[in-house]
Amino acid sequence: MILTVTLNAALDLTYRVPRLRPHTTHRVTEAVERPGGKGLNVARVLARLGHAATVTGFVGGPTGETLRRLLADTAPAVTDALVPVTGPTRRTVAVVDAATGDTTQLNEAGPQITAAEWSAFTNRYTQLLDGAGAVALCGSLPPGVPVGAYAHLVRQARARRIPVLLDTDGEPLRRGIAARPDVVTPNAVELATLTGSTEPLRAALDARRRGAHAVAATLGPDGMLAVTPDGTWRAAPPSRLKGNPTGAGDSATAGLLSAWLEGLPWPERLARAVALSAATVRAAAAGEYDETAYEAALPLVKAVPA
Amino acid sequence: MILTVTLNAALDLTYRVPRLRPHTTHRVTEAVERPGGKGLNVARVLARLGHAATVTGFVGGPTGETLRRLLADTAPAVTDALVPVTGPTRRTVAVVDAATGDTTQLNEAGPQITAAEWSAFTNRYTQLLDGAGAVALCGSLPPGVPVGAYAHLVRQARARRIPVLLDTDGEPLRRGIAARPDVVTPNAVELATLTGSTEPLRAALDARRRGAHAVAATLGPDGMLAVTPDGTWRAAPPSRLKGNPTGAGDSATAGLLSAWLEGLPWPERLARAVALSAATVRAAAAGEYDETAYEAALPLVKAVPA
Repeated sequence: MILTVTLNAALDLTYRVPRLRPHTTHRVTEAVERPGGKGLNVARVLARLGHAATVTGFVGGPTGETLRRLLADTAPAVTDALVPVTGPTRRTVAVVDAATGDTTQLNEAGPQITAAEWSAFTNRYTQLLDGAGAVALCGSLPPGVPVGAYAHLVRQARARRIPVLLDTDGEPLRRGIAARPDVVTPNAVELATLTGSTEPLRAALDARRRGAHAVAATLGPDGMLAVTPDGTWRAAPPSRLKGNPTGAGDSATAGLLSAWLEGLPWPERLARAVALSAATVRAAAAGEYDETAYEAALPLVKAVPA
Repeated sequence: MILTVTLNAALDLTYRVPRLRPHTTHRVTEAVERPGGKGLNVARVLARLGHAATVTGFVGGPTGETLRRLLADTAPAVTDALVPVTGPTRRTVAVVDAATGDTTQLNEAGPQITAAEWSAFTNRYTQLLDGAGAVALCGSLPPGVPVGAYAHLVRQARARRIPVLLDTDGEPLRRGIAARPDVVTPNAVELATLTGSTEPLRAALDARRRGAHAVAATLGPDGMLAVTPDGTWRAAPPSRLKGNPTGAGDSATAGLLSAWLEGLPWPERLARAVALSAATVRAAAAGEYDETAYEAALPLVKAVPA
């Protein structure tokens, strides 16, 4: 089982409007609700790849009840081990302009987490680690969670020799990386914010010096760059893709973790991550990927030494 | 008791963002949830004016549960007589740009109403009419409700000699007005759509010919125009107002109805409606008004023959 942690899970709403015009009123022509937050997207992709996944993090309020009900649709491949809290699960709203395909994103901050709730979570996390083959720590922190949260969770996994991947940004990434996670998966902006360098290879080397055993940076249409103890590789998608990039990074995370657990070496982990990412850009929603596009892309993606 | 009908009630979300930039990601700095839909706003204002109000319409799903929980905060002044349905109550999202104060509105369509649910509603409505001193029929129709719904509800009220106000637009207004409501409260655009005339006095006279006993048109910063069997009046707010016009029309409706039930003549009904409207523009949210602004405005608003 792969454990994914989403401390700031969300009920994701996708609103389609004919054309977004600020300061006017719009009829939403299509509204879709989905369980959201990076770790939940990662778990859904893992499940489709044949890996059982367990999701944990916080859930609360009426929005949280809706999230759990929707999440139950993916059982038993995805197991719900979310920890109940008093505050309501946040919503995110993605407004898709049907005329251009562009998306405008509105993200609520998330519920206020108390010290007792954080403590209940860390206890649950420790229990869940017992059955975990790998852990993915994903996304932003809700209010009230200590900024060093991920550093603590990384250490707990490392102490049990469970591979741990960290996908977050800002100060939680800065603190978390110092706890020596096995891999971090920043995008170019997150990597530049962390290191001060906009040159991905230089920045990834710096991120390793800060504590990450490996860095697998997602570079949008350029694919990925992996700087690891075994070597340094780049892999690009087979062609320039048009579509919705939401969730592409989460699919890459699922690709890396699944290939890791299957004992594949870094070049093959990277190729799977990039092919899944590309197949997600072609799909309708985060946490989904286009199976045909994935099968077509995988043999075409080659990781080459960088 | 005044009965307000909101067939397409909503859970209103107000999201404050520092600056709305289409096609980018925003952190919502403040998220407020309120029971929404015109009739619910009218009921809240009526309650503050000292008139007991009962709200009916449809409610369903997790969003409906949240709406009812929030609505319970206004009990016992506002009584919840909403009719449960299977489909979920819609959400509306108002995105307030903190830099400019402008609002971008996103409105879900609403739940699909079955024939059995519509029938259950009309039975409930007939029961509620027994205790009603007046009825306000407010807002859009959710999918599945017959387009002649308001015409039917107007006739039921008229058959019992209960004053009935209709505040809707488009085809439901066109059909509803033919059933001879006591008053309709269109804005300038709705009146023009109904009659083809952009000149409010001419359009209001036309709307009376179509069946409305009286027309009380809301003309934004110009105040209101009433064309009634007793005469024709205009009333303007005391000064040009800056603020949020959301809900101003609902406050005007509450002003008209409350003054009507207190036996006041048309000029005083109109003055109260305009003063409440102005005080709502100064308040933070729909269904609220600024008490001090209302007290200050009321003696300054004079209805003059038009």
